[in-house]
Amino acid sequence: MSILVVGSVAFDTIETPHGKRERCLGGAATHFALAASFFTDVRVIGVVGDDFGVTEEAVFAKRGIDITGIEHIPGGKSFHWKGSYEGALNEAKTLATDLNVFADFSPKIPEAYRDSEYLFLANIDPVLQARVRTGMPDVRMVAGDTMNYWIADHRENLLKTLAMLDTLIINDGEARMLSGEHNLVKAAQAVMNLGPKSLVIKHGEYGATAFFCERSFAGAPKDVKPFRAPALPIEEVVDPTGAGDSFAGGFYGYLASQKELTPAVFRTALFYGGVMGSFCVEKFGTERLQNTTREEIEERFELFREISHLDFQIQ
Amino acid sequence: MSILVVGSVAFDTIETPHGKRERCLGGAATHFALAASFFTDVRVIGVVGDDFGVTEEAVFAKRGIDITGIEHIPGGKSFHWKGSYEGALNEAKTLATDLNVFADFSPKIPEAYRDSEYLFLANIDPVLQARVRTGMPDVRMVAGDTMNYWIADHRENLLKTLAMLDTLIINDGEARMLSGEHNLVKAAQAVMNLGPKSLVIKHGEYGATAFFCERSFAGAPKDVKPFRAPALPIEEVVDPTGAGDSFAGGFYGYLASQKELTPAVFRTALFYGGVMGSFCVEKFGTERLQNTTREEIEERFELFREISHLDFQIQ
Repeated sequence: MSILVVGSVAFDTIETPHGKRERCLGGAATHFALAASFFTDVRVIGVVGDDFGVTEEAVFAKRGIDITGIEHIPGGKSFHWKGSYEGALNEAKTLATDLNVFADFSPKIPEAYRDSEYLFLANIDPVLQARVRTGMPDVRMVAGDTMNYWIADHRENLLKTLAMLDTLIINDGEARMLSGEHNLVKAAQAVMNLGPKSLVIKHGEYGATAFFCERSFAGAPKDVKPFRAPALPIEEVVDPTGAGDSFAGGFYGYLASQKELTPAVFRTALFYGGVMGSFCVEKFGTERLQNTTREEIEERFELFREISHLDFQIQ
Repeated sequence: MSILVVGSVAFDTIETPHGKRERCLGGAATHFALAASFFTDVRVIGVVGDDFGVTEEAVFAKRGIDITGIEHIPGGKSFHWKGSYEGALNEAKTLATDLNVFADFSPKIPEAYRDSEYLFLANIDPVLQARVRTGMPDVRMVAGDTMNYWIADHRENLLKTLAMLDTLIINDGEARMLSGEHNLVKAAQAVMNLGPKSLVIKHGEYGATAFFCERSFAGAPKDVKPFRAPALPIEEVVDPTGAGDSFAGGFYGYLASQKELTPAVFRTALFYGGVMGSFCVEKFGTERLQNTTREEIEERFELFREISHLDFQIQ
């Protein structure tokens, strides 16, 4: 089934201990769409300027991603982010954020997108997230992301969006900030009380934990149950930019590709999230996502099972 | 088969957001021994003062732990540690360290301990660790722990001990400090190059990763393979003191209870480590370890499988 994703399409200038890349294609919607495209049809709503041309369009086209919803602002410039990572590679230092045309982003839903069954609200202003969600009343499922900026300074708007979500996908720090609870289980419970019917908390190199219960989806257990998926221990993290969005794309893409949402499907989706995140960090920007295959994805999925399952026969 | 553990037997004064306990029985060897005692015979070498009496002896006796190797120094006082945990509960603030009789600890191996098949060198001076290891030349396996203090200020001595180890069990920070590598896979490889044939790195609330390969044990894969075990997401961490030692006790106790060391046994042991660590933090000091049962342990083991395995049927 089709996923509609709304979010940033950007150019990233990235410096890590492994090198530097100027203006490579990035943005949350881009990483998400590429990762999800290996599992299901994806449609993107975003905004770009004149600097987004045939080269960038080809990246989406190659993966069969529908970008008729990416609005071009004539004379405008696309969102540009510049950041660097040092030693630990687990936190980006933002050097510049040029919002450009993204500053006035007003998502418009193309008619041809109206039959999308799954909606993903990538990390943008919660007011815009809510508007898109309201404009797509008939979707089967809505998932979303957010970040510290919206949690701290736009809480009221964010709470309205959270109330509309089936699944929220955030990281440890965001879960703690949003809930005011340090303990992860208490934080998860508090966040779910704000609206999301299920919750995925990403732990970076340590994997992710999902929380779900009876109201999350049919067939889910009565009480809140956690499920932990590992991350692949990776020797060479070249560039972590977009890993979280690639995780979300793999997770949600797999969900949307399945007939029914069951606990088993939800757990499997979490593993595919980890798989796509692990590919993302192997090269700069979206380079690795652009050049992976479904076979490689299945191979790595088996590797994820191997490193986490007791009864797996290691060769 | 029997495990001989050498390490601290102490009294801990602990303050956490859940309360305060004065002088409860603690020490690395104590937590380790209690956790391992649910799987196999355990013998302890340590040193205590006059304050260690029948009440403390009874704790070990109840679990069938042999403490003839715990030396009593007449007129002496046992090691006393005082610490507090705040909000995050993931780092202890040491308020006092009274080494007392532990300052002159000189481990002596009782004759009756000589047939122990498994040796665990808890976190003590690496010079003493090496001496005990040399005094037990016929053991089947040697595992050990260490800490930042020895890594930073006693590196040369520590390197001699590391060269004698089958398995080293440390946490993320220690692995990074010891190797000088931030990346966990590179850190693991570097630490294993120092001697340990296999390595377990604990990630606190995120679980643990084991690294092993052909030289680790018979039947292990040729290349270094990681295996990730989850930690149980716990709503109420009452007191994290001793969680790492309880993890080591569960891990090593299970290993020692098995006929052969295979990759499957190693992986299962890692899960039992997580199980015993998860019990430890539920109450102050060793209270929960003293009062668990093998049935509860098996139940929780199944819970660990449930929260991490794709094909597990969640009720």
